[in-house]
Amino acid sequence: MKFVSIIIGSKSDYDVMKSCADTLETFGVQYELIISSAHRSPERTKEYILEAEAKGAQVFIAAAGMAAHLAGVLASKTVKPIIGVPMSASALSGIDALLSTVQMPAGMPVATVAIGKAGAINSAYLAMQIMALESEDLRIKLQEDRVAKAKKVEMDSLEIETKL
Amino acid sequence: MKFVSIIIGSKSDYDVMKSCADTLETFGVQYELIISSAHRSPERTKEYILEAEAKGAQVFIAAAGMAAHLAGVLASKTVKPIIGVPMSASALSGIDALLSTVQMPAGMPVATVAIGKAGAINSAYLAMQIMALESEDLRIKLQEDRVAKAKKVEMDSLEIETKL
Amino acid sequence: MKFVSIIIGSKSDYDVMKSCADTLETFGVQYELIISSAHRSPERTKEYILEAEAKGAQVFIAAAGMAAHLAGVLASKTVKPIIGVPMSASALSGIDALLSTVQMPAGMPVATVAIGKAGAINSAYLAMQIMALESEDLRIKLQEDRVAKAKKVEMDSLEIETKL
Amino acid sequence: MKFVSIIIGSKSDYDVMKSCADTLETFGVQYELIISSAHRSPERTKEYILEAEAKGAQVFIAAAGMAAHLAGVLASKTVKPIIGVPMSASALSGIDALLSTVQMPAGMPVATVAIGKAGAINSAYLAMQIMALESEDLRIKLQEDRVAKAKKVEMDSLEIETKL
Amino acid sequence: MKFVSIIIGSKSDYDVMKSCADTLETFGVQYELIISSAHRSPERTKEYILEAEAKGAQVFIAAAGMAAHLAGVLASKTVKPIIGVPMSASALSGIDALLSTVQMPAGMPVATVAIGKAGAINSAYLAMQIMALESEDLRIKLQEDRVAKAKKVEMDSLEIETKL
Amino acid sequence: MKFVSIIIGSKSDYDVMKSCADTLETFGVQYELIISSAHRSPERTKEYILEAEAKGAQVFIAAAGMAAHLAGVLASKTVKPIIGVPMSASALSGIDALLSTVQMPAGMPVATVAIGKAGAINSAYLAMQIMALESEDLRIKLQEDRVAKAKKVEMDSLEIETKL
Amino acid sequence: MKFVSIIIGSKSDYDVMKSCADTLETFGVQYELIISSAHRSPERTKEYILEAEAKGAQVFIAAAGMAAHLAGVLASKTVKPIIGVPMSASALSGIDALLSTVQMPAGMPVATVAIGKAGAINSAYLAMQIMALESEDLRIKLQEDRVAKAKKVEMDSLEIETKL
Amino acid sequence: MKFVSIIIGSKSDYDVMKSCADTLETFGVQYELIISSAHRSPERTKEYILEAEAKGAQVFIAAAGMAAHLAGVLASKTVKPIIGVPMSASALSGIDALLSTVQMPAGMPVATVAIGKAGAINSAYLAMQIMALESEDLRIKLQEDRVAKAKKVEMDSLEIETKL
Repeated sequence: MKFVSIIIGSKSDYDVMKSCADTLETFGVQYELIISSAHRSPERTKEYILEAEAKGAQVFIAAAGMAAHLAGVLASKTVKPIIGVPMSASALSGIDALLSTVQMPAGMPVATVAIGKAGAINSAYLAMQIMALESEDLRIKLQEDRVAKAKKVEMDSLEIETKL
Repeated sequence: MKFVSIIIGSKSDYDVMKSCADTLETFGVQYELIISSAHRSPERTKEYILEAEAKGAQVFIAAAGMAAHLAGVLASKTVKPIIGVPMSASALSGIDALLSTVQMPAGMPVATVAIGKAGAINSAYLAMQIMALESEDLRIKLQEDRVAKAKKVEMDSLEIETKL
Repeated sequence: MKFVSIIIGSKSDYDVMKSCADTLETFGVQYELIISSAHRSPERTKEYILEAEAKGAQVFIAAAGMAAHLAGVLASKTVKPIIGVPMSASALSGIDALLSTVQMPAGMPVATVAIGKAGAINSAYLAMQIMALESEDLRIKLQEDRVAKAKKVEMDSLEIETKL
Repeated sequence: MKFVSIIIGSKSDYDVMKSCADTLETFGVQYELIISSAHRSPERTKEYILEAEAKGAQVFIAAAGMAAHLAGVLASKTVKPIIGVPMSASALSGIDALLSTVQMPAGMPVATVAIGKAGAINSAYLAMQIMALESEDLRIKLQEDRVAKAKKVEMDSLEIETKL
Repeated sequence: MKFVSIIIGSKSDYDVMKSCADTLETFGVQYELIISSAHRSPERTKEYILEAEAKGAQVFIAAAGMAAHLAGVLASKTVKPIIGVPMSASALSGIDALLSTVQMPAGMPVATVAIGKAGAINSAYLAMQIMALESEDLRIKLQEDRVAKAKKVEMDSLEIETKL
Repeated sequence: MKFVSIIIGSKSDYDVMKSCADTLETFGVQYELIISSAHRSPERTKEYILEAEAKGAQVFIAAAGMAAHLAGVLASKTVKPIIGVPMSASALSGIDALLSTVQMPAGMPVATVAIGKAGAINSAYLAMQIMALESEDLRIKLQEDRVAKAKKVEMDSLEIETKL
Repeated sequence: MKFVSIIIGSKSDYDVMKSCADTLETFGVQYELIISSAHRSPERTKEYILEAEAKGAQVFIAAAGMAAHLAGVLASKTVKPIIGVPMSASALSGIDALLSTVQMPAGMPVATVAIGKAGAINSAYLAMQIMALESEDLRIKLQEDRVAKAKKVEMDSLEIETKL
Repeated sequence: MKFVSIIIGSKSDYDVMKSCADTLETFGVQYELIISSAHRSPERTKEYILEAEAKGAQVFIAAAGMAAHLAGVLASKTVKPIIGVPMSASALSGIDALLSTVQMPAGMPVATVAIGKAGAINSAYLAMQIMALESEDLRIKLQEDRVAKAKKVEMDSLEIETKL
């Protein structure tokens, strides 16, 4: 079974990352979500990656805040694509997590998305875009979603234009 | 034919992005590289995306500096994965390009990598990791590269240790 | 008919951008306000620009947050002046939107104003200053507004001085 | 006579702002360029604005670095559009000048463009876009420039593609 | 009569700057407080400086937010010491006002203090330190205040130590 | 008696630094906590360091916000290890305190930890790791804590996984 | 004898701070310049302040880079005005020194000027503006300098205007 | 044998980190220096830590740039104190490495020092301060170094004072 593996660095990140899981669910894409920390449970993290990969994980999504090392740790254990979601978990509003996630050294990419909720949702979309390369079905759903989004913009606009 | 499409926003970004092309070449992965600008040649950009997609582009890599909109523009035209490489092309050392690339709104992800040369190389690796999901051959090469990199670290270390 | 065209990237930016519309209204300047997104509705955005320009739009005001590409996209489709208003729509307080809006490459200017509400109001003033180049009437109104603003400062001062 | 008035805050900014003057010259647009400082020559600055406005200045371009107050000072003296070009004149690479220029209070806009040379060129383009509202001739030149820029992108691309 | 002149750029800054006035009052130092804006009431600002200087103002304190030009404008009109207090009046938390205030060009200093309330209080202390150069009485009060502050630290410490 | 000395720069930092004291208490490590300021009570600070060192202080923890000089002042008075905790006490969210604490000149280190509460807790852990070099007992407790933390991650994960 | 006391934190700051001494010399203002470090020579620093104050120092100028504590340390030892010059001595271009200097807690002001050379010169001007409060002679020199600076702007402008 | 273990993330960091090794050597403190990467050689890194700890490593110093995870990875494998040195290895001048190193989550401290060379030297001093807790000999050397540093400041000052 092909699925997306979501790893969140701390329980407190769950509320934001729920939108990632929800997005995948809306599109009927299989996923697994666990909590595991780069620093507090390094062994668990390492074991889980191997196991998830064996079970069919295609893409890993890692969400972490502050000195966000989780995505980078995953990147060092597998050659599957890793998507990193920087959490806004400190006084620095996530700029620490963004730089800790995106500034990876040559040869060890982390596909980084926006800080916080927009990034949580985008990590799901990016995972699906990757999986859609081999799934006509998913690709069509993503294209339909685009059409729906464009329509939504028109509806929003009408609503506001009427108010003026 | 499956290939990676590299679009660079300006001729001046070529020197840095050459490392992206070189990396793909080293692994024997097909690619196309063109210059096209989100702002100066919007029609060309749009037409090229459709054409490249039709010809078999699996992943797009967009490199741009300053208010780097190129990756975002690509993201709005296709549901293929888009990788964004922020160039350090202004007085702000690429932080402008990084934020313009990574902070995409929900539903329109750009897989962002590091600023400058490390990012150029990583965009190639990320593209290959995505394509390796369906290519056993490429996956093995990427794994061998990891082994080689780890070995390189040991060699570098020996060289330094000897000096002490 | 000469008018100002206001395009906002997302419904959630309307509350802030209402001050732009209100300012134009106070001065009796015609405007149109629609929602359209650089990424979610690129075709709509493009079509609207052409149509608005044909109908008499003199200046475009684009408001967007995060990786704010809307103003830049407009800039690439018309040679009419584009005013960009960076919204404070993410954890980064609008610094992402500011850089994405102002750091445009040579030949493609976006006239950028302050982040958030001050910028929303200033986009209206800037549009009117541009239109006042050919409208004696509007120029006089803007000059009277200056006098009123200076008077308001004196009144505010008296109010505070009395308290001391 | 309608012309663009360029004011630069310090002799040392001339090298960068020369590209503004050169751009206007290329398009055959009249301009005047003087040095005047918000802080070192406030009276001269004030007198010049009135005089320039009387002579036909349509748009003012102000270039300054560090705590760049020049554009704001102009904005307080006239209701003509003011374009601000932040110079990269300090250890802070122009981020000080950018914020000092763009973050104007409500009612006193400065149309801010990119830091440094790109901004210098863009200030000329923005001034011309404003003046083109009443000059069919200039508008056509600006549109032709767009076509030329798009063509230039294609040429640049061919040159690079051939090298690969 | 020797006094401190406090100028605040906008009514909304009064709540924070009240601590400046209160501090001066506690030490029995004469002051005047008015609202005047660098941009909205430039003439009033200029006239007030000359008048205040004539009446005996020794030090000027200017408080402003965003692109905070007020202190710089004062600096250009007088050779009396100018103290600038950056207000946290925008989405950027006062970093814009800090840079707009402190990064003055050579020859035109603004004595800049901390952002917000700490700066408001410190502007009063700095003004008094300057005036104490010629007032034995004030100098002694400032020294007594230091002793009191050190004592206060001890009291605070005892209170906490007891809790443990 | 060997103990950790905690110095906080202001009463208002106590709420955050309580987690430092609590963490040490949980592990049964002796500590002393006082308030003393680098600027408001320099003599008290200096005297306390000497006294604390004589009594057996092994490590000093200094917590301060804004231009956080406390840790640096300690560093200049003793060769015992100094841990600095940057407080988020101003509009700048602690980035001022972080840079004021970590960027010490060569020869005068301050062991800097994260801004705010995470840093407060980490200062305790770091102090204990240092003291554990000579305490088998403490080292074992720290290792057990690691095991507990890893277990806690698993429990958190189970709780979330069940919800899905 | 009344004089300005300049303290620089490190020999490497001398080249920049020479412009401070030179400026004072041009105006015939007495000064003393020594090297003393907040961290490396705290006792020397403390003793020097007392001695300098006794000898007639009116204003202290402290120049330091990185976690620039020197000005703050002076501020804690005297109630004379302290001017802080942030040096650009690290990879962070002086933003660390700026924040370490300006963000002083309430009651302990440091009059902060621009980063680097502009600040070095401005520290001299600010010191002179303070001393001019009691020196008609110095005040006149400062006013003449303003006139000369305004004239210099005109000369610079003529030079450039001729080139066009 | 008790020693300091220095791990550098990449060969290119060696030039800067040599000052760390040199400093330890000057004081006669044993050390080991190897290259190992958090990402490129995670297994080697892990094995080395265990081995070094078994051989007597008291403190680990980790130097890395960009998304600097090395110190954090060490922190997750041992309860020995970890010192992190952020390298200035990217366009962002080391602010990325600083935040990636210092912003560790609660319970996993990294003792962070300054960016670049000052930090490299300080990591050696901090390691020695820790080891000096149990070495009277080393403590005395560190205190003598302080005296020498203070003397050096005086010598530097004399040299400059003579020049004036």
